[in-house]
Amino acid sequence: MNLESLNTPAALVDVARMNRNIERMQQHMNALGVNFRPHIKTTKCAPIVMAQLEAGARGITVSTLKEAEQCFALGIRDIVYAVGIAPAKLARALALRRQGCDLKIVADSVACAEAIVAFGRRHDERFEVWIEVDVDGHRSGLDPDDDALLAVATVLASGGMQLGGVMAHAGSSYDYDTHDALVRLAEQERSRSVRAAERIRSAGMPCDVVSIGSTPTALAAERLDGVTEVRAGVYVLFDLVMHNVGVNPMSEIALSVLTTVIGHQREKGWAIVDAGWMAMSRDRGTQRQKRDFGYGLVCLENGEVPGDYLMSGANQEHGIVSRSGAPDHEIEQRFPIGTRLRILPNHACATGAQHPAYQAIKPDGSVETWPRFHGW
Amino acid sequence: MNLESLNTPAALVDVARMNRNIERMQQHMNALGVNFRPHIKTTKCAPIVMAQLEAGARGITVSTLKEAEQCFALGIRDIVYAVGIAPAKLARALALRRQGCDLKIVADSVACAEAIVAFGRRHDERFEVWIEVDVDGHRSGLDPDDDALLAVATVLASGGMQLGGVMAHAGSSYDYDTHDALVRLAEQERSRSVRAAERIRSAGMPCDVVSIGSTPTALAAERLDGVTEVRAGVYVLFDLVMHNVGVNPMSEIALSVLTTVIGHQREKGWAIVDAGWMAMSRDRGTQRQKRDFGYGLVCLENGEVPGDYLMSGANQEHGIVSRSGAPDHEIEQRFPIGTRLRILPNHACATGAQHPAYQAIKPDGSVETWPRFHGW
Repeated sequence: MNLESLNTPAALVDVARMNRNIERMQQHMNALGVNFRPHIKTTKCAPIVMAQLEAGARGITVSTLKEAEQCFALGIRDIVYAVGIAPAKLARALALRRQGCDLKIVADSVACAEAIVAFGRRHDERFEVWIEVDVDGHRSGLDPDDDALLAVATVLASGGMQLGGVMAHAGSSYDYDTHDALVRLAEQERSRSVRAAERIRSAGMPCDVVSIGSTPTALAAERLDGVTEVRAGVYVLFDLVMHNVGVNPMSEIALSVLTTVIGHQREKGWAIVDAGWMAMSRDRGTQRQKRDFGYGLVCLENGEVPGDYLMSGANQEHGIVSRSGAPDHEIEQRFPIGTRLRILPNHACATGAQHPAYQAIKPDGSVETWPRFHGW
Repeated sequence: MNLESLNTPAALVDVARMNRNIERMQQHMNALGVNFRPHIKTTKCAPIVMAQLEAGARGITVSTLKEAEQCFALGIRDIVYAVGIAPAKLARALALRRQGCDLKIVADSVACAEAIVAFGRRHDERFEVWIEVDVDGHRSGLDPDDDALLAVATVLASGGMQLGGVMAHAGSSYDYDTHDALVRLAEQERSRSVRAAERIRSAGMPCDVVSIGSTPTALAAERLDGVTEVRAGVYVLFDLVMHNVGVNPMSEIALSVLTTVIGHQREKGWAIVDAGWMAMSRDRGTQRQKRDFGYGLVCLENGEVPGDYLMSGANQEHGIVSRSGAPDHEIEQRFPIGTRLRILPNHACATGAQHPAYQAIKPDGSVETWPRFHGW
């Protein structure tokens, strides 16, 4: 199988680029002296997860218990489920642990901690729990200076659970676009997480793990004193949002959607392609960034950027390709019916999720189908 | 299995509402004296497609050849693949026809028509082809007054293909929000499609089918003289975009995403839930409509609307639920950890696509899992 034999639309992974991305992150983590625990929610794809582990990652991060189950079936034991657990999911977490999975779960409230303790005691299970810390106000977690931090830790520790550590995710890093700002945010993520851990330890409770990370802060971090591990996900493929944030050149984006030109509207300068939002996702993450790429940047089938062409609109199975600025009234000659293009995505996590599998393009030009996990 | 036993997030279909939606559309089409051919891209789900056919639909519309293959395997023969065909997909279309599928394909250019003729002749296959007509400038198709319309018809007819008819989709109907505007657009869709058919017939070529449709224009149409069939998709479930367009009350939306509260940020008035964009999709179709519902409108587990709560933000597996306007600082008491909510989606087609299956809630409260087709 090769590129020419693929049906369209298809999600292509450039394996050489992917391997360089994995190598770059792992080397940075090694240089900073911390463990690296990739977040597999970006790809949910066994060969990619195995490549991350082979390059030196220690354990994985998941966003669903389905990912944990699928990865445990691959032989991966060290897994953190990095979303605050719903009490109704504890039975499923227990089943994984009983099978030998070293699954860590997360809480950021007394109510959740109490539910874990009650369930753990009822089933004689000492769950390992990490407490989520809020380092930038973007979503979940406890303020490191909030009294609730110690209250949650106390409930878990006194309730017989294993208080494994703290974790944080500087998700607001996606809103920045300068290296200096990312360096400052990385330091904020580090210092606030370490502060939370120190408060727990000062109160006489254990807190071995200090786990932080997002792709921009992980790559920007200059020192990680007190941190034991970093998590990041999208770095493995990169995308246009990350390009706008400033962490990767266009040439490092390892995911693209292969599509075929199926029509034109000459007066409007449109080519119509057979990849719409079903293939690209509805993610418009670059809409509020310094450059809006519509639904994606158009490349030729060989990966070259032919000029300033974007997927400017998308319906379910139709994409509209047009030139930024003045319409290209010769688009019918430039991209005739049957032309195959590759669209770089705004957000690799969202685009990948639309596809049952990646088509992995090896350096020798051969193609392998790499299935993704789907659902919850 | 019942609602209480479901894992979250889950895509719930209220079967009673769905059946009423199917019945309403079919009765309207019967009253207008046209065939109805549902677009199954919305649900890609066998039990739903079968319910549409049992209610009186004649044939189906698909957006991918995968849908055609899956539906043909269910015993459905009369299928139109309503996306201009890429020449490289003709072999797959041929395989379906050779197995006995009455598959119709679509073209809107001389280049595509020539490719169909060349492939058809090479394989001794008389493809049935419909010509796509542009009735509102929103995407694909030929202007009914364009010379190219007759040129395409001539290539197909003289090349030995079966010129089956014309089809159009007034996709711009999603941009309106008054009944009068929709009535006018429905008439425009009708009259321009009929005009295209008449031009082809006047030139001495056959054009039996005049196929039009979108959910808003289908429901608004007052007369359909000259039209032989209507296509529509999202009407079967409806959603918040359609509500803003004005075609359905909130109480007819048959799709919701079941989710569990996993945390809070009290000062911000946020509840965090375990449905993010992976469960809702990234579709923000209401963003530019008269009411922006964020990522969806919050209902209680029983379907009641508890007030003006939206999913105001979404990460991959986290949703942020908050009150419109002033923050609800008592949200932790209102929706405690473990509370289950149902989120009405912006766009049923996009939300459904995020899920491997629907959980169908029957009128007696029992739940059946209804798988969806996935991929291309």
